[in-house]
Amino acid sequence: MHSPKILVYRPDEVEYYKEIIEKQGITNIYTASTLEEAKSQLPTTEVILCWQFPLELLETPEASSVKWIQSMGAGVDDLVKHPSIPNDIQITRIVDQFGTPISEFVFGYMLYLANDIARTREEQAKRQWTPFHAQLLSGKKIGVAGLGSVGLEIVRKARAFDMEVFGLSMSGAKADRVDHHFGPDQWKSFVQELDYLVLTLPLTEQTRWSVNREVLLSMKPDATLINVGRGALVKESDLIEILQEGHLKAVVLDVFEKEPLPIQHPFWTMPNVLVTPHLSGPSTPEGVGQFFVQNLQKYVEGKPLQGVVRREFGY
Amino acid sequence: MHSPKILVYRPDEVEYYKEIIEKQGITNIYTASTLEEAKSQLPTTEVILCWQFPLELLETPEASSVKWIQSMGAGVDDLVKHPSIPNDIQITRIVDQFGTPISEFVFGYMLYLANDIARTREEQAKRQWTPFHAQLLSGKKIGVAGLGSVGLEIVRKARAFDMEVFGLSMSGAKADRVDHHFGPDQWKSFVQELDYLVLTLPLTEQTRWSVNREVLLSMKPDATLINVGRGALVKESDLIEILQEGHLKAVVLDVFEKEPLPIQHPFWTMPNVLVTPHLSGPSTPEGVGQFFVQNLQKYVEGKPLQGVVRREFGY
Repeated sequence: MHSPKILVYRPDEVEYYKEIIEKQGITNIYTASTLEEAKSQLPTTEVILCWQFPLELLETPEASSVKWIQSMGAGVDDLVKHPSIPNDIQITRIVDQFGTPISEFVFGYMLYLANDIARTREEQAKRQWTPFHAQLLSGKKIGVAGLGSVGLEIVRKARAFDMEVFGLSMSGAKADRVDHHFGPDQWKSFVQELDYLVLTLPLTEQTRWSVNREVLLSMKPDATLINVGRGALVKESDLIEILQEGHLKAVVLDVFEKEPLPIQHPFWTMPNVLVTPHLSGPSTPEGVGQFFVQNLQKYVEGKPLQGVVRREFGY
Repeated sequence: MHSPKILVYRPDEVEYYKEIIEKQGITNIYTASTLEEAKSQLPTTEVILCWQFPLELLETPEASSVKWIQSMGAGVDDLVKHPSIPNDIQITRIVDQFGTPISEFVFGYMLYLANDIARTREEQAKRQWTPFHAQLLSGKKIGVAGLGSVGLEIVRKARAFDMEVFGLSMSGAKADRVDHHFGPDQWKSFVQELDYLVLTLPLTEQTRWSVNREVLLSMKPDATLINVGRGALVKESDLIEILQEGHLKAVVLDVFEKEPLPIQHPFWTMPNVLVTPHLSGPSTPEGVGQFFVQNLQKYVEGKPLQGVVRREFGY
């Protein structure tokens, strides 16, 4: 069986990823954590498994043998938009692994807000016994933008919480368990009645800045926005403006136009903005390793890969 | 139609409860918020709708016409254990209304701990961007003690989170969606493998102090205990001891042996104890009013009531 040279690239933990893959009986694996290391390993490399790869290397002669790039993440907007990746290199992304952690993140933060856990923590610190009525998710309206594997897992849990489910799909796909369907031209009517808007879309030319001032102002003033997709789905400058005008009850942001979120960014200190450091859909080494090994098996057998990115759609 | 004299009693908000019931077309309603007021209203009262009623009044001659007491809560251990309530007074409790809020409380706090939201809040305050891997509920083992309407709603949501479900029922009742069933003599084997133990049992002679030192030490050292039933299901002095010995990862307590929790109680400041002021299953005036009016209709028609307390079982 053909055993292609594999380069595993990421800024940290790269040896641990190599170890996990080697344990599955794969050989011919090299690692790199910097541009220089990557450059010296590239010649004769056929397969790249990577996170934050220095993409400019792919237009150099050293990269001429690369045939397949497996991203360690689900979002590949950086790869897709990069002009230097030759068209004959196949790109794949991780699929079907993030529904569980991201949906647990989304429900964790929705329930944190609804139960006002911040308040109970503060009152415990003051030894204060003041029962209050929490909000319920039950009966509330949740809108899920993006009905891929992540969005659908959120929909499934929303059903268990007896929420009314609105779904927006860029492709117009309809899903079981979604009560009201919307397409890409219907953002304003989609968001209008929602108590919670959750963004799980990929970032593409079509989705960039979908949630702009107009859409935000179409939301109810006491609605909550949660972004676990990509930062630039939301026009951040518009979001800051409408928040300063007193619109929206709370915003939970796990992703940002620029990451890490710059230290001077207003989001850090805005009272109803909850910032988390892009942790809702973690690539675990074990999960990535398993996905890659299964795809590698298909690759050497010449079968179609899982998670193939269609660059014309942007994901 | 017979229109019995109704006394609505609670220390606060009593007029609002009266208003809600009156809106349903019920007349002949009186209110009281203190022992004195209750005493003067008792003669000719046939029906009492109450919260924290001064039970000693029920052995006085003024109470001789009382036939039915509808509690505003789900737990009636105070009523059941009180010696002065004549046996011919029927007691009912609210049923089937607390599954939704209590299960949202339980999942809110489990996800708060699993997602380490305390950490993300602290790190935001320091403008610190340090992604970490959250714990997942998926694949974890949850034990629900008490498979009434509250317990079953927790089980239903646990399924949506792909947890393995253990159930303990005092009556030995078995429930769909529960993977492993246990009875009242099996506490130690019930808790042994759990990641989360949730108590929803009523307080009775049989259940008091069920969760004592021996049971607590049978739990895994990194398990989490959540009590939304009654405080005295847990022997608090034993719980404090085993926590001080480093056993258990976290404890969420919404109910206590003595409420409000005394200001000097160690729970307030123990680092892995989350104290909430008995708010997980709130009686809303609207919910109580609706339940009472439906039961009153049955009462005047001579039909069996909902939520009848069987004093021999203690709930």
